[in-house]
Amino acid sequence: MIIDCHGHYTTAPELHTLWRDAQVAAFTSGGEEPSYPEIPDDQIRESIEQNQLRLLRERGADLTIFSPRASTMGHHIGDEAVSRAWSGRCNDLIKRVVDLYPETFVGVCQLPQSPGTPIDRSVAELERCVNELGFIGCNLNPDPSGGFWTAPPLTDRSWYPLYEKMVELDVPAMVHVSASANPVFHATGAHYLNADTTAFMQLLQGDLFKDFPDLRLVIPHGGGAVPYHWGRFRGLADMMKKPTLHEHLMGNIFFDTCVYHQPGINLLFEVVPVDNILFGSEMVGAVRGIDPETGQFFDDTKRYVDNLPLTGVEKDKVFAGNARTVYPRLNDILVAQGR
Amino acid sequence: MIIDCHGHYTTAPELHTLWRDAQVAAFTSGGEEPSYPEIPDDQIRESIEQNQLRLLRERGADLTIFSPRASTMGHHIGDEAVSRAWSGRCNDLIKRVVDLYPETFVGVCQLPQSPGTPIDRSVAELERCVNELGFIGCNLNPDPSGGFWTAPPLTDRSWYPLYEKMVELDVPAMVHVSASANPVFHATGAHYLNADTTAFMQLLQGDLFKDFPDLRLVIPHGGGAVPYHWGRFRGLADMMKKPTLHEHLMGNIFFDTCVYHQPGINLLFEVVPVDNILFGSEMVGAVRGIDPETGQFFDDTKRYVDNLPLTGVEKDKVFAGNARTVYPRLNDILVAQGR
Repeated sequence: MIIDCHGHYTTAPELHTLWRDAQVAAFTSGGEEPSYPEIPDDQIRESIEQNQLRLLRERGADLTIFSPRASTMGHHIGDEAVSRAWSGRCNDLIKRVVDLYPETFVGVCQLPQSPGTPIDRSVAELERCVNELGFIGCNLNPDPSGGFWTAPPLTDRSWYPLYEKMVELDVPAMVHVSASANPVFHATGAHYLNADTTAFMQLLQGDLFKDFPDLRLVIPHGGGAVPYHWGRFRGLADMMKKPTLHEHLMGNIFFDTCVYHQPGINLLFEVVPVDNILFGSEMVGAVRGIDPETGQFFDDTKRYVDNLPLTGVEKDKVFAGNARTVYPRLNDILVAQGR
Repeated sequence: MIIDCHGHYTTAPELHTLWRDAQVAAFTSGGEEPSYPEIPDDQIRESIEQNQLRLLRERGADLTIFSPRASTMGHHIGDEAVSRAWSGRCNDLIKRVVDLYPETFVGVCQLPQSPGTPIDRSVAELERCVNELGFIGCNLNPDPSGGFWTAPPLTDRSWYPLYEKMVELDVPAMVHVSASANPVFHATGAHYLNADTTAFMQLLQGDLFKDFPDLRLVIPHGGGAVPYHWGRFRGLADMMKKPTLHEHLMGNIFFDTCVYHQPGINLLFEVVPVDNILFGSEMVGAVRGIDPETGQFFDDTKRYVDNLPLTGVEKDKVFAGNARTVYPRLNDILVAQGR
């Protein structure tokens, strides 16, 4: 069984996207929020079957942990009410995809974060998505300002209400920023990777997992710059008198395989324990083209993992077992489905 | 011959550091700038011989391209006048090191950048350092705000006056941020690496080297996250209808080897052409300890490069030839020295 831990609904129906545009326009002009359109099942089916489902089948994966499009979470746009309404719509749309394809998609929610707003305002939406919609985790944006980095580090106590609820619900978060409103940062080419690196270093500096030994965080895009600079981070932990990375962090932090070339995947598996790696592709996502050097899609990360000299047990962990451990509610769903 | 392209004066005499403290205190209190102390040659000799010079000899390198400590450039501290005075003192101190050890150190200057201040105010200091002090390049801070990223991308025309002067003087810049005043970013564990990745992506998005075909930029710390995500960047270039990375950027961008473990160095050399890699260690710098896995210093990057299956010609390029090409004024100095 092959589980892709990192898929976003980047192909959502146009009606949904147009509603967002109208919502933001209404906020800007001080008008009333538009009513949300009826989106027929057929439009959802079409958007999924021609894209994610087709590619999953072509590439040989079985299931995607599926969340709203990261780049359009746009926590920095509008205000808290705008973010709450948009997040709710996005999560409801994910639920519809899951209901149409219950064996192929499981839901992860977007949180209604908003700059300067306490994170406990996001707890209710997390509870709704987990308890009512059957979702198995959330995406947590460490920079809801969209590239201006005004929120405190993830180890700050202001984030604790969310972590408490995550532990209570036994769901992990993927640490994932949204679009950059700061022109210095290209979203998928800089902001995403910087956020991954930044989050890991914050966790290294702090002692968050002493307070939350059961908290689990997935750092996407192969951990940003972290595996490439694994020696730097090991050395910084040493200089800071922290335990080793393994003792300090790797019981709680997991990386995905969204690294779009073989040498990068090789490095990831060389330095990061196999128990901490979850197969992911970020498909259909950041990089959509075909690599002229290989003739294959850049984001067909399964090929890179397949090329590794892993044992059967190791492959099972990376492709499914680790995801079932990190997302226990996914495991419950699969068990209920007899998988 | 072995040239380390990335060394900072992290061990400057205490009198110099105390003056900086007094300068900042005077700025804060509105007092007069203190007079700069007499620093005896012996104090400079001691600070160098017990540190950089000792390590250079132990590790078998011959020469370091030497610049003021990056983390204390502190462009965000004080105002333009504070930055100008401090930069001048720092650069003068580097000149004294070079004069004491002319066969072991060559100078690269800190620029007197200040947030919101046009870059052409830094041009005079670059000219002074190159023409009067014999320096061979500069460090360019893409984020003089210290982690708040308020400056425009490096491709913005507001940076052009510096690039024009660099081309005229035939000197490169190392793109290097200073300390982070933003608590989300650890300096050496996040801000440095993020800046490297961010700069590369800005250059990928833009067409700076069409306007400045002879401009040369060194991106330190092994290029941040870039080599690890080389496939992502190749794919993004493709999506943006840019030429290949090689055609678009690699005639002008160079990475150093400040990657503190063997797998990272292996990856760097696997994906980045050998002509674009300059040996560097960032020594004495970010990570000062001994790797318990190898028993060697994390930042003894020469060992990692020595372990690579490079030809003699390739080693010569990485250890010296590329530096002589990227820094033509270094080559002139070496030729004059009969080296």
